[in-house]
Amino acid sequence: MTDRIFNFSAGPCTLPLPALEKAKEEFINFRGTGMSIIEHSHRGKAYDAVHLTAIASLREALSVPEEFDILLLHGGATMQFVMVPMNFHKKGMVMEYVNTGAWAKKAIAEGKRYPDEHRVIWTNEEEKFTRMPKASEIKPGSDAAFVHFCSNETIGGIELQEFPDCGNVPVIMDMSSHILSRPLPWDKLSMVYAGTQKNLGPAGMAVVIIRKSMIAAANADLPAFLSYGTHQKENSLYNTPPVFTIYMMKLTLDWVKEMGGVAGMSALADQRSGIIYRTIDQSDGWYRCPVNKECRSRMNVVWRLPSEDLEKKFIAEATAAGFDGLKGHRSVGGCRASMYNAMPVAGAEGLAQFMLDFKKKNG
Amino acid sequence: MTDRIFNFSAGPCTLPLPALEKAKEEFINFRGTGMSIIEHSHRGKAYDAVHLTAIASLREALSVPEEFDILLLHGGATMQFVMVPMNFHKKGMVMEYVNTGAWAKKAIAEGKRYPDEHRVIWTNEEEKFTRMPKASEIKPGSDAAFVHFCSNETIGGIELQEFPDCGNVPVIMDMSSHILSRPLPWDKLSMVYAGTQKNLGPAGMAVVIIRKSMIAAANADLPAFLSYGTHQKENSLYNTPPVFTIYMMKLTLDWVKEMGGVAGMSALADQRSGIIYRTIDQSDGWYRCPVNKECRSRMNVVWRLPSEDLEKKFIAEATAAGFDGLKGHRSVGGCRASMYNAMPVAGAEGLAQFMLDFKKKNG
Repeated sequence: MTDRIFNFSAGPCTLPLPALEKAKEEFINFRGTGMSIIEHSHRGKAYDAVHLTAIASLREALSVPEEFDILLLHGGATMQFVMVPMNFHKKGMVMEYVNTGAWAKKAIAEGKRYPDEHRVIWTNEEEKFTRMPKASEIKPGSDAAFVHFCSNETIGGIELQEFPDCGNVPVIMDMSSHILSRPLPWDKLSMVYAGTQKNLGPAGMAVVIIRKSMIAAANADLPAFLSYGTHQKENSLYNTPPVFTIYMMKLTLDWVKEMGGVAGMSALADQRSGIIYRTIDQSDGWYRCPVNKECRSRMNVVWRLPSEDLEKKFIAEATAAGFDGLKGHRSVGGCRASMYNAMPVAGAEGLAQFMLDFKKKNG
Repeated sequence: MTDRIFNFSAGPCTLPLPALEKAKEEFINFRGTGMSIIEHSHRGKAYDAVHLTAIASLREALSVPEEFDILLLHGGATMQFVMVPMNFHKKGMVMEYVNTGAWAKKAIAEGKRYPDEHRVIWTNEEEKFTRMPKASEIKPGSDAAFVHFCSNETIGGIELQEFPDCGNVPVIMDMSSHILSRPLPWDKLSMVYAGTQKNLGPAGMAVVIIRKSMIAAANADLPAFLSYGTHQKENSLYNTPPVFTIYMMKLTLDWVKEMGGVAGMSALADQRSGIIYRTIDQSDGWYRCPVNKECRSRMNVVWRLPSEDLEKKFIAEATAAGFDGLKGHRSVGGCRASMYNAMPVAGAEGLAQFMLDFKKKNG
């Protein structure tokens, strides 16, 4: 019996226990160097090995081709909402955004700052963001600078299933909430970014996987810190990097590898989310998932109960039983179980059992 | 005998051992919540208490008046080099920069992006940055938008002693490398910022202490993430904050308080740097500090030996003896001992003894 609870928070969230244990073990004296990893100079050998291994492990895990560089940038995905249009807007061209929900809209808000150079090419707002576009629905214009997606929406609980082929138009994806949970079709992608605090480690950073040709074609004359080119040139050591986040990402990637890599993560995601979706689907409509079945997220499962009072009761009793973070986002209500890579299958099983019991008592 | 060594790195650097020990102790199960602090939702109660306490402790430690807000921002001081001109440049006014060395120049480089709106009002480059300006040397123009200083230069090893009174012109100071080591004259300051990785905690964040009136007068129409107003409004929770860095800052501030607050830190800085400067001054010129005596930094002590070969030998033998990170910055060479708040006095004493012994053997 461990004293750890099941943490279904949307992020920050559960991290792999072996990674936490390793970090704890060597926290004050990192590998016999006589200091903590967070005290090491970012220009020294000990940290450098961590930095390079973290990048190499991510490349290996996601089979990132050589045409792509991997950057580790301060500020999370929110910083990328700003950097993407800043680096890639072009006079006479249009940045195309796909509106799939709350996170897509945050990216769009920064695109809108270029009034003549942005356009929303697909939205599902009228259906309350209950589905993702099919690949065939995405048709970039001939003047498109890029197409931007958020491929998993944590609030709506929907996940992109088909990656569109946009030909020569670069596709940029915010994969913050499901990176490392599936293999990626790199031929259809030009840039993928992800805040670290869900599937990669602690908060405070974004991973950016980007075609070298994208960086070469980016706008010049930007503040140095906001230019992808700066960070590419310095291998993400232009300024002091978020050392601890990178270190924890490295440990998380060690764990991913041990668990069978991205294929292993994908199987676990199927298993966990399958357990909860089946519980919902077999409840005769007592639990209800508002999302189009084909677009259900394997990371963020959202559902409703027959009334808001029951939802409140459900969440309170679940929390007391050791299932934390199940409250849906305040903008939509209901329940949500975020189950990122490090969530043990036992967490999903336990939650499913709790759902069955709760229905029995209250149904 | 501990297995920790003395780490004289310029940053990241030594952190207080009690803070590291506390973090290690509760790393996997934060205060009985069943999860690590880095797994907690940034919208939850457990993290919120850490966030608010960190801000309140910093306010208390530095006696920050109510007219100032404290912001915790992603990206380190380098991000502030960008945000300062972005938020505060004004048509018809001029951003005034003081050029005291390598770090001042990094800030100036971002000011230069506004060709007609910046000006360097003081420089010591011709004397190789061996001194800081006297207060009387700083005379802002009537069209000054602000005056920007870097008040401690880690590479040059110089520290501002007198805070100029610039009247109505806002004074902005990058105090990354000596914040919390002395009380601050808030009546002469409008904004102070500091990367966290020297005196506050791990890397990946900047603390910004800023007059509310500065934010009110800042430029609107900025990317949300790059506007001070955004972060003020959301109490630095606009996006997921760098949770672990804030948590470690809180633990570091607990330690500062226990050690007598900023007054205690200042006394320790005098003691440590005094030990090394005396060793240099009493070496009959064998060790030589290139810096103007009145401007010597209490955080970063720089010195030369009679030859570069001896310097190499000194650094190698010191490292072997457990005094790490003494190599001067590659741009200037020589030796440097960075002794931020958490460096034990025993570190300075041990280094001084090593210097005496080394001179005896090689002098």
